[in-house]
Amino acid sequence: MDYAARMQTLRHRLRDSGLPLLLVTHLPNIRYLTGFSGSAAILAVWPDKARFWSDGRYREQARIEVRGARVTIPRGSIDAAAAEAIRSARRVGIESGYLSLQRAEQLLGGLRRARAVGNWIEAQRAVKDPAETAAIRSAVELASGVFGRLMRQLRPGMAETEIAGRLEFALRQAGGEGLAFDSIVAAGPNSALPHAHPGKRRLKPHEPLLLDYGVRLAGYCSDMSRTVCLGKAPPRLREIYAAVLESQLAGIAAVRAGVEVAVVDEACRAVLRRARLAKYFVHSTGHGLGLEIHEPPRIAAAGSPRRPARQKPGGPARRRAAAPAAETPPVCLETGQIVTIEPGVYIPGWGGVRIEDVVRVTPRGAEILTPTPKSLIEL
Amino acid sequence: MDYAARMQTLRHRLRDSGLPLLLVTHLPNIRYLTGFSGSAAILAVWPDKARFWSDGRYREQARIEVRGARVTIPRGSIDAAAAEAIRSARRVGIESGYLSLQRAEQLLGGLRRARAVGNWIEAQRAVKDPAETAAIRSAVELASGVFGRLMRQLRPGMAETEIAGRLEFALRQAGGEGLAFDSIVAAGPNSALPHAHPGKRRLKPHEPLLLDYGVRLAGYCSDMSRTVCLGKAPPRLREIYAAVLESQLAGIAAVRAGVEVAVVDEACRAVLRRARLAKYFVHSTGHGLGLEIHEPPRIAAAGSPRRPARQKPGGPARRRAAAPAAETPPVCLETGQIVTIEPGVYIPGWGGVRIEDVVRVTPRGAEILTPTPKSLIEL
Repeated sequence: MDYAARMQTLRHRLRDSGLPLLLVTHLPNIRYLTGFSGSAAILAVWPDKARFWSDGRYREQARIEVRGARVTIPRGSIDAAAAEAIRSARRVGIESGYLSLQRAEQLLGGLRRARAVGNWIEAQRAVKDPAETAAIRSAVELASGVFGRLMRQLRPGMAETEIAGRLEFALRQAGGEGLAFDSIVAAGPNSALPHAHPGKRRLKPHEPLLLDYGVRLAGYCSDMSRTVCLGKAPPRLREIYAAVLESQLAGIAAVRAGVEVAVVDEACRAVLRRARLAKYFVHSTGHGLGLEIHEPPRIAAAGSPRRPARQKPGGPARRRAAAPAAETPPVCLETGQIVTIEPGVYIPGWGGVRIEDVVRVTPRGAEILTPTPKSLIEL
Repeated sequence: MDYAARMQTLRHRLRDSGLPLLLVTHLPNIRYLTGFSGSAAILAVWPDKARFWSDGRYREQARIEVRGARVTIPRGSIDAAAAEAIRSARRVGIESGYLSLQRAEQLLGGLRRARAVGNWIEAQRAVKDPAETAAIRSAVELASGVFGRLMRQLRPGMAETEIAGRLEFALRQAGGEGLAFDSIVAAGPNSALPHAHPGKRRLKPHEPLLLDYGVRLAGYCSDMSRTVCLGKAPPRLREIYAAVLESQLAGIAAVRAGVEVAVVDEACRAVLRRARLAKYFVHSTGHGLGLEIHEPPRIAAAGSPRRPARQKPGGPARRRAAAPAAETPPVCLETGQIVTIEPGVYIPGWGGVRIEDVVRVTPRGAEILTPTPKSLIEL
């Protein structure tokens, strides 16, 4: 990972802004800039230096991992040490989308010196560099490899929780560092809930089984969804599956550097509209992924309140409250971004279908990273 | 769960404060007050009413789950809908420890009307009601049951990731809803890192194996740590184990309603000091648990910067930056609180030992909820 290049890009932005320093408190951003993978740290970036604070548990790890910043392990709290080090700065750039009001006030002794910098680092992170692309590719391939093996283990009567257990065991066995998010394994009518968690429901023939899961490798996330059927799929499932697949293929076909995210979203939605299923597609079309499972860009209509199919509980609000579409410039895909394309149809009481791949944006179109086939699997 | 009683307690506090309303944005607090278990919601509590907003994915779930508040599923963003509903309030109580600066500004149109309310709901949540106690007890017993079965599966040469996989599979099989946190399985020298994640290291005889894991049941977390040895433990491991066990027993013996948390922490530390191991005990002694894996009270010395053995990445800062001990009144345990007691000793390059139980605070002392024995297991 080229931490020096990342820090240099950030410093250009810092210099342009005229701010004397930026306080980085969002841990994935700290990891992106320094390589530190622990759970407690603050990073302060000046135009000509950077300082990093963590606590005693991470003395050894910080020494090994952190690049491009002077490491301090204070005796007291790391917030107090950072607050002291930035005391003389008249203005301090902060990540206002992540930093709580209380912690901002404590770090800066009030908010007078605070200057929200928007999503500088998130914007950098949206375009993946080669090492990041390789890491995501590895995670995606690991997760896809496990999918095929899991399919061979499915039997009627197996509970959702057991399938989730086997899935997660296999991800671990294959070398996964951990899950990218709580796995979704939803059988029958449960698959109509885009956010279902594995429960006691057992696999029955001729019902949809929706799987949505991801693994972490070298800190980077994978994400994939497939919907399969134990035994022959009834006509309605076949029809809905075909529509969702066509929608997903249309979304992928629309992906290209320079294309508005809203155009990709509409490509998926238009197919479902023709099939009279658009009202059952209740979430956004996709999202970037990397060190976090949800990163910019969000693939959705401009100004749409639609959320991802899954959402990390307690995650920070990413969208502005009620900003009309006209006020914000259109968001366009850029070469090197890596995003999911995951339309779904959810019919209450019956079930749902979602198909999700990870794709990389190139000037010529989408490069599909997920190798798992997408024709309807009837087990 | 007695949601009405919880809301009533909160309203007493709201009336005492003179604030016209409290905006609740921290999802575990929303779950605590209304029962809603989804990943996107806002709750506004007035002295005489409450309103709840979520998005289209949760229409059905909110209808089923939410108690004591009028549910709205707006067409636009839920933040915008909540912002509109509280527009006329001159002052608005907010959870400043969780709400990001950016979102606070968007919800309130600036910060002029914002009033930080401190940890009102966290303080309520620290004392568990009977239904919560039962839920935590069930989660703790499920996790303990799995421990014994896992012990019978351990073999030399097994990788940490495989052990974690088996453990997590068994937790799922036993009915767990999910993990309470990323499991720790650390063999040999890796056990010296209190925050170790399972990796490629394989089990070798005569080395410590540290396990720290938790499961979720009905939304409530369990948490337990044990350190075992494959084959006969060498004398140093036996000595350190005995010291940590004595420390843990001393901590539990110190637990009683009305006792300062610092006294419990010191009870653990004093034992390790006598064994000349205190400097290797680098984290706090314990923490409350419930809907979140780390909740108040923190069992630590007053003003101590020591963090829990594990820490949720990206979690909000709970402690004040650099508040000297003298300024804050001592924190005392209360009847009905449920906390972990988990001293540990970590010797770089050699390994570590941690022993952790969940206990309930009563007027007569600690009630130990974790049934798993604590004598050194040599497999």
